[in-house]
Amino acid sequence: MNFKINKAVLNNAIKKVSGAINPNTPVPALTGMHLAANQDGLTITGSDSDLSIRTFVPSDETEGVEIIEEGSIILPAKELAGIAQKMPKDLIAFATTDETQMQISSGKSKFTLNGADGNEYPKLPTVEGDSYPIKGQVLQELVEKTAYATSKTETRPVLTGANLFYQQGSIGMVATDSHRLSKVVGDEQVEGDISPVTIPEKTLQKLPKLIGDAETVHVKQTESQIVFQTEKAQVFSRLLDGNYPQTDRLIPAEHKTRLTTNRKDFLSAMERSTVLADKDQKVVTLEITDENSGIFETIELSHNNGEVGQSKEDIIVDETEGEELKISFNAQYMIDALKRIDDEKVVIEFNGAMRPFIIKPENKTHFVQLILPVRVY
Amino acid sequence: MNFKINKAVLNNAIKKVSGAINPNTPVPALTGMHLAANQDGLTITGSDSDLSIRTFVPSDETEGVEIIEEGSIILPAKELAGIAQKMPKDLIAFATTDETQMQISSGKSKFTLNGADGNEYPKLPTVEGDSYPIKGQVLQELVEKTAYATSKTETRPVLTGANLFYQQGSIGMVATDSHRLSKVVGDEQVEGDISPVTIPEKTLQKLPKLIGDAETVHVKQTESQIVFQTEKAQVFSRLLDGNYPQTDRLIPAEHKTRLTTNRKDFLSAMERSTVLADKDQKVVTLEITDENSGIFETIELSHNNGEVGQSKEDIIVDETEGEELKISFNAQYMIDALKRIDDEKVVIEFNGAMRPFIIKPENKTHFVQLILPVRVY
Repeated sequence: MNFKINKAVLNNAIKKVSGAINPNTPVPALTGMHLAANQDGLTITGSDSDLSIRTFVPSDETEGVEIIEEGSIILPAKELAGIAQKMPKDLIAFATTDETQMQISSGKSKFTLNGADGNEYPKLPTVEGDSYPIKGQVLQELVEKTAYATSKTETRPVLTGANLFYQQGSIGMVATDSHRLSKVVGDEQVEGDISPVTIPEKTLQKLPKLIGDAETVHVKQTESQIVFQTEKAQVFSRLLDGNYPQTDRLIPAEHKTRLTTNRKDFLSAMERSTVLADKDQKVVTLEITDENSGIFETIELSHNNGEVGQSKEDIIVDETEGEELKISFNAQYMIDALKRIDDEKVVIEFNGAMRPFIIKPENKTHFVQLILPVRVY
Repeated sequence: MNFKINKAVLNNAIKKVSGAINPNTPVPALTGMHLAANQDGLTITGSDSDLSIRTFVPSDETEGVEIIEEGSIILPAKELAGIAQKMPKDLIAFATTDETQMQISSGKSKFTLNGADGNEYPKLPTVEGDSYPIKGQVLQELVEKTAYATSKTETRPVLTGANLFYQQGSIGMVATDSHRLSKVVGDEQVEGDISPVTIPEKTLQKLPKLIGDAETVHVKQTESQIVFQTEKAQVFSRLLDGNYPQTDRLIPAEHKTRLTTNRKDFLSAMERSTVLADKDQKVVTLEITDENSGIFETIELSHNNGEVGQSKEDIIVDETEGEELKISFNAQYMIDALKRIDDEKVVIEFNGAMRPFIIKPENKTHFVQLILPVRVY
């Protein structure tokens, strides 16, 4: 195996693949990166067996890779990454001395790195069947707007991922940790008969960077595996077992109180309200009072941490309608939700002090977030 | 107590003072910041009793503080910092409701913060005697070039600080952890009879930011305390007990081998050589061989980590003289030393494989660093 590669191209590929590697894996081969060179180019793979990432550097690009001899090898991931980063010149030459040892040189610097035979690397899962295309930008949005709401505890394992579903010709995604929920439907018509699957949070975390600015992502899925493919990267992920709960019936269709406010100002106020809060208990109280016979100009947000002090804030609202309300909730959940909205204005719809309430962008219907209130004694 | 202050000015002052506060101190009053307002302005103090930082915001500046009523209070540090950072408007109003409670408001946001009576705050040490002036820039240089070499273990407590000394009319500073040493003498004539004192590393760590771009720092010292004073900040520090070792006799005046090389290239090579090293044992070997009858063009740097691999590097040198040499040392020490030098070229002088060697800027004599080699079996 023998090739020459541009330093920046190599570092870029290594960075992508690194995300899948767990240095503490019990499978020794998986602590390394798999490099395979053939006449088409160089393929680099990293995997923790649940998640595998494969990048491809074509040999025909000017600033890419020049393959001199085909072959494959496993090299220690951390060391390979360190060497690639610190090499003195823009061109790095790789040449095996035998099946398990690589010489890497650049300028007057030369490394000999001990690895393992490329054939010892575990096979990636094969995912059969047709793929469907989805816009890179749409997939980005689905992931970024829902992944945060996945459960961080293993009580119900299926909730630690986000559910990808197909609804009225569009792909959507929903996540909930049973205290809050986020659901978004992509604004793109996708053809096919796509079964709902639940994608682990770790995969969601890595996906946006791997998709990058790819225009189209080709998705292929079975009952246990999903593959996301762009021109330069392939992401293989295990899926989560179990039936994802029916979330649509959790989202209330009606409301008793409704307010529209500036997203940024409301977010700042929420962030201020957590300054005096304990780390684990950021409960705030929002009070909407009918001072001017139905026309509210401000609502009040307060937090009381007896020992340290209190905060109080008047929130300027654009519009409110409906009943008076005093409701308490976790401020961090509201902060997380507001951060996922791009619009200038947000709408919040309540159904009384003890019922879940929803947050959504003012002018869009495809994105809805839900928060369960907290009982305060 | 009642004052109005510009948000950025307040945040700046709080940030400086925060550095001295240890949230886990056993003295409750010291978990807070002390605020004192009088007609001249606002003084904010933070302290962990070893190190105290005091900043002053004058009342006569346009964008400063407006004192409405004098007084003092202790407020919880973390919460005060959080509030100051997150307030919505550029002007923040402070008003006590009683001796232990402060109302802080800005725009439509209002906090009530519980603190303690300002009179309960411990008195800062009084440091009597004359002060001597030192250029801010010189003090910065002394600290930045030596603090890294202080000992991180408590075996010899006096080595955990840097020794400030007076020598032939200049102030200098030296630090050593007994494996390496850094000594720099300021290029400024200072008048006075200044006794050597040893400043704890924690103080050195904070000092550069606190000095900022102050032109002159006034230093006052006793046997147990030192105070650094600029126009806007005062730093009080405990000094370390014990006699600092005589370091001058450790620095060899002669050499058997000498080389001059490009600092940046040598630093990159050293950094590459640590890629394959264990975290705690970054030993590299430098070999200078007399290939061309006394004229060396390259020297060789190598590292061998049997399990993972080896690295080898040819270093281009500008000039060498003296004996052939093969020497092993901790690469991290060399990296630390090279990073403290500003010059394009560095000179390294050796006295054989088992004797300490020195690193210095090519054209300056006021700054010398020393490293002890490692015995390799």
